[in-house]
Amino acid sequence: MTQVRPHGELVSLIGMAQARYAREIDDGDCTAWPEFFVDDCFYKITTADNYAQNLEAGLMWMDSKDMLRDRILSLLEANVYERHSYRHLLGQPYIREIEGDEVESETSFMVARITREGPTDLFATGRYIDRYRLLGDDPKLVTRIVVLDSNQIDTLLGFPL
Amino acid sequence: MTQVRPHGELVSLIGMAQARYAREIDDGDCTAWPEFFVDDCFYKITTADNYAQNLEAGLMWMDSKDMLRDRILSLLEANVYERHSYRHLLGQPYIREIEGDEVESETSFMVARITREGPTDLFATGRYIDRYRLLGDDPKLVTRIVVLDSNQIDTLLGFPL
Amino acid sequence: MTQVRPHGELVSLIGMAQARYAREIDDGDCTAWPEFFVDDCFYKITTADNYAQNLEAGLMWMDSKDMLRDRILSLLEANVYERHSYRHLLGQPYIREIEGDEVESETSFMVARITREGPTDLFATGRYIDRYRLLGDDPKLVTRIVVLDSNQIDTLLGFPL
Repeated sequence: MTQVRPHGELVSLIGMAQARYAREIDDGDCTAWPEFFVDDCFYKITTADNYAQNLEAGLMWMDSKDMLRDRILSLLEANVYERHSYRHLLGQPYIREIEGDEVESETSFMVARITREGPTDLFATGRYIDRYRLLGDDPKLVTRIVVLDSNQIDTLLGFPL
Repeated sequence: MTQVRPHGELVSLIGMAQARYAREIDDGDCTAWPEFFVDDCFYKITTADNYAQNLEAGLMWMDSKDMLRDRILSLLEANVYERHSYRHLLGQPYIREIEGDEVESETSFMVARITREGPTDLFATGRYIDRYRLLGDDPKLVTRIVVLDSNQIDTLLGFPL
Repeated sequence: MTQVRPHGELVSLIGMAQARYAREIDDGDCTAWPEFFVDDCFYKITTADNYAQNLEAGLMWMDSKDMLRDRILSLLEANVYERHSYRHLLGQPYIREIEGDEVESETSFMVARITREGPTDLFATGRYIDRYRLLGDDPKLVTRIVVLDSNQIDTLLGFPL
């Protein structure tokens, strides 16, 4: 089942998955967000300081696709998206490790927050530490740890990153 | 005439065209800007709100390469570029649709504005909604709709995005 | 020795090298920074105005891998990294020229500066003008000229870009 793919091809494949993901959360309505994950996924948002110290605590964590679905439903009901929009810009994935049909990668990101009639500012920076399962040409996230660079986290932070 | 290209190859081809385009408007003098378009092109700048509501009105629109040339000539004569410079950073193109030798793609961007002796700030974010015609290895823009995330648009906005 | 590689493959190869580089300086401790260069490398930080006027003067220049090593050691001793962290986001490399097994490329970048408990801001923008020597799948920098867009340079600027 497992096929060996050249490094550059993996970067391209994961890069395309990242672009689809970013598009869904920036320009879609986020309802398809959970579909980027496998059923028994793990999703966590933490800070660089916590991550470096191996602290378990995260700002948010979810350990199944169902929890991701619940999260999105509550966000949509709360109409959180009306007030702001976001724009993610991602770096090229760095491949950390390849194990069978799973790949660990790191990807830097910047997120801008746009208040419709007001200013646009740099809302968050950090990196995704991902574990992708390669299923044909459609890699799914087994794990996504969102490591934020800053410790100063906006209290509204509840939306997908 | 039409050849089927793998998805990853299209992303790579369009990504290279986007990089050349950004370089011309950030680090060139913009005179080659119109050359990234076909003769009967359509170029429009609009906002996310207008785009979502299918409003025709744009902040700027041009429907031929000649109009793009005129625009650049007036900007160069007005020496608008002396005061500021810009830096575009683009995400990876997302392929929306492939029709014969034309490809529709979406690409996120952030633009920083640099005032030579003063601060640098995040000037604009948004996405390009593009239709590229593939001519060998040199894709040309048939349509570029620049969808700005914010409704608060700088009045100086007249330069290529 | 020299093999002709397709343009897209070069972009991919250099993009991967850039991603490794950015990861080392953002998320590593920078000790491996000099390893991205050949022994007799040239590294310079300058401004767009100086670069456009062909001024030799740079904000910082080093002409061997040993000088880069010394620089990093002094920075680590001074514990400069404790106070801030940085996040680099890079555009896709634009290939300027190919000469034998050396490639000249330009890559746009934005750097955010994160003060741990305070705000995150856009610290610097600019472009790398690079000359890479292709050694297998591990391109090394022969020359890196970091051209900053702004003339207003932070006095703390002494870390790798």
